[in-house]
Amino acid sequence: MIKEYIASNKDRFLSELFDWLRIPSVSADSRHKGDVRKAAEFLKDKLSNAGVDMVEICETKGHPIVYAEKIVNPSLPTVLVYGHYDVQPADPINLWTSGPFEPVLKEGKIYARGACDDKGQVYMHVKAFEAMMKLNLLPCNIKFMIEGEEEVGSDNLGLFVKDNKSKLKADIILISDTALISLEHPSITTGLRGLSYMEVEVTGPNRDLHSGVYGGAVANPINTLCAMIASLHDANGKVAIPGFYNKVAELTAKEREALNEAPFDLNDYKKDLDINEIKGENGYTTLERTGVRPTLDVNGIWGGYTGEGAKTVLPSKASAKISMRLVPNQVSAEITELFTKHFQKIAPPYVKVKVTAHHGGEPAVTPTDSAAYRAASHAFEEVWGKTPIPTRDGGSIPIVALFKRELGLDTVLMGFGLDSDAIHSPNEHYGVDNFLLGIETIVTFYKHYAKK
Amino acid sequence: MIKEYIASNKDRFLSELFDWLRIPSVSADSRHKGDVRKAAEFLKDKLSNAGVDMVEICETKGHPIVYAEKIVNPSLPTVLVYGHYDVQPADPINLWTSGPFEPVLKEGKIYARGACDDKGQVYMHVKAFEAMMKLNLLPCNIKFMIEGEEEVGSDNLGLFVKDNKSKLKADIILISDTALISLEHPSITTGLRGLSYMEVEVTGPNRDLHSGVYGGAVANPINTLCAMIASLHDANGKVAIPGFYNKVAELTAKEREALNEAPFDLNDYKKDLDINEIKGENGYTTLERTGVRPTLDVNGIWGGYTGEGAKTVLPSKASAKISMRLVPNQVSAEITELFTKHFQKIAPPYVKVKVTAHHGGEPAVTPTDSAAYRAASHAFEEVWGKTPIPTRDGGSIPIVALFKRELGLDTVLMGFGLDSDAIHSPNEHYGVDNFLLGIETIVTFYKHYAKK
Repeated sequence: MIKEYIASNKDRFLSELFDWLRIPSVSADSRHKGDVRKAAEFLKDKLSNAGVDMVEICETKGHPIVYAEKIVNPSLPTVLVYGHYDVQPADPINLWTSGPFEPVLKEGKIYARGACDDKGQVYMHVKAFEAMMKLNLLPCNIKFMIEGEEEVGSDNLGLFVKDNKSKLKADIILISDTALISLEHPSITTGLRGLSYMEVEVTGPNRDLHSGVYGGAVANPINTLCAMIASLHDANGKVAIPGFYNKVAELTAKEREALNEAPFDLNDYKKDLDINEIKGENGYTTLERTGVRPTLDVNGIWGGYTGEGAKTVLPSKASAKISMRLVPNQVSAEITELFTKHFQKIAPPYVKVKVTAHHGGEPAVTPTDSAAYRAASHAFEEVWGKTPIPTRDGGSIPIVALFKRELGLDTVLMGFGLDSDAIHSPNEHYGVDNFLLGIETIVTFYKHYAKK
Repeated sequence: MIKEYIASNKDRFLSELFDWLRIPSVSADSRHKGDVRKAAEFLKDKLSNAGVDMVEICETKGHPIVYAEKIVNPSLPTVLVYGHYDVQPADPINLWTSGPFEPVLKEGKIYARGACDDKGQVYMHVKAFEAMMKLNLLPCNIKFMIEGEEEVGSDNLGLFVKDNKSKLKADIILISDTALISLEHPSITTGLRGLSYMEVEVTGPNRDLHSGVYGGAVANPINTLCAMIASLHDANGKVAIPGFYNKVAELTAKEREALNEAPFDLNDYKKDLDINEIKGENGYTTLERTGVRPTLDVNGIWGGYTGEGAKTVLPSKASAKISMRLVPNQVSAEITELFTKHFQKIAPPYVKVKVTAHHGGEPAVTPTDSAAYRAASHAFEEVWGKTPIPTRDGGSIPIVALFKRELGLDTVLMGFGLDSDAIHSPNEHYGVDNFLLGIETIVTFYKHYAKK
């Protein structure tokens, strides 16, 4: 029944999603403030048409949150669907082969900013809900909380959650904002890394100097910053900040074995990225390195003359953005402090350093022994014919820890994207099959979950 | 006699120089092409008025060279004055306290782009020549070769010199484009460092990646570049490129002693730059580090996300501009090759590197036992009451080596600037005393030189 409904409505589903994707809801760019609201209103209308009891646009200090609910019967369990309707900036625009806000279908994939992350994945839930309403299949209560600031750190979501605990009362959180291993290997994300994001500034002399007149006698802050950054990893690829690994939960041999059962082809991986060798913490596999091990990456660096040609400057300052991905049971605020103290400590006496913290987020693991997880697993088995593999994702969705802390709720991360979808990059796309199978899997999840 | 002439014409000298400084002859900026030519024509007129036999604007592929001569008697010695009428760009404009091309007099100093480097210093020669003509004091022949491309690498000067060897026939080159230790401590520059200026690009994955999904498993090109740069110096502050020091001329104990006799106050130096410690090659003093030791400095670095806030990107590329100052008898082309090979060799297998060479220049030493040097030294003694200290400058004037190679001529570097003049920086200035004493010293130089 659901298969037929999806098949006969598929063109309309895609056409509606395309309309939504045409709205450039870039939360980071204040010039798109109106577009972000337009995208919220579009969602409100679609939820309303699909048959929710109520839907509202909730104001925040930033972009609004769309909240909706359908209470079938207060005594039935309630699923709270979280997602976001804001998107990453489209830069660099010139690398897109079609307009980022002019969605097109190419070889079975939808190309547009937000096609996967997260409008495409949120829209599966809207259409799954519509289908259950039309086919009279909805077996429990649903609440939707879809925010517009996920790509800029969800600054106002925490307050909203705290202020609306009774409204958000539910039994489980359901999120589609992660990826499958592949269409052949469905998977459910059971762990996410946390984040500490830092910015450092190294100051040498009080002004830019002529590198001829002063070079060799005055410490160059770029050289100094490079040496400091280089010292943040040891020869084994470990992060060389004292205490950094203290709280890292080591997996048992059995857990490591299970994790490494996920299909992974190193040659394909290297070929896809066009690299000759991989590089990471010694003694761990690639799946472990991204899934269960913490890391430190420089996300940006700048200093001195960066224009065309040559300028012989010994600059006054050099800066870098450095982020650390965290794993259970590391605590973002603690790692931020460890980093800050360490970076100040290793600063040589000939420079001054300033360390600033950007946003952070806690790592999370979701239980695999809950009724909701089992329902999700059964849904995949029914629709995809395969038991989904539990995986640990390298990325961060800090709100998962927030929901656990504030609402006491566990999350099921039932995402349908692929790592190759180029989210956050030019030419983001989302498979039509992923989209349609996602709708079917979500409907099937509700069926199994209500039976619990 | 010369003192009186300068005193009674000083206001006119300054007013003329101000007119010249108002012409924004920025050679690097094609929008100022017309201004560069205007500055050349201004100089041509002033040389003509001062009494040269002939003056011409010589076309090149870039900006023109102003050539002039006064042949008193072909059997007398000939001094070839070299300088440049082009100036550095004025950026960052907002840090200037008065317009870079609106010269003003503040506390005995002329503030304008080019006030010292090199219009102010060239104009001393024009006015010294005028004075000698008016007072009938010119004791030998003079040739002027003032170029308009010094700040962009003197690309067309080499060809001009090669093509005009007989026209440029002379006995000595005289250049005022360097600095004194201080007004209390006159000095003559006797050595200049050479330069090899490189650009490096490190490529990791073929596209920007999400640092959550890939971080820890794929080498980050910024971290890699930092480690490579850090490895370019050893623990003693030496440049760790094999062969880098092979041709470096080590000074004798006596030469080192003489070099270190120049007045230098480390506390003042640190205070001026607002640094707590200096840093350089172990075993050498600051004067040695900038004067007679080669160095390696990163002049610029960039990669990844450098905007406001946080973006969790694992970038595809990271780049840096790296220059080395060279000393006798290092050869720029050889050092460029050593760097290129070494940087490629230390590249780990998980990245690709591209190394490109920007301009280079040869180091130079000028003799202190020549008639011209003695004449310059006597001129300082007569005008300043002190024997000038021979110093090694850290900067580069590659044309000194060019003149030696092509014309077989030695150079006397009789500059009157100060290191604090902020050349190449906002608020460039030049002391009126430096300017006027410079004119007097130049006239006195000719008197002693002709007596040789």
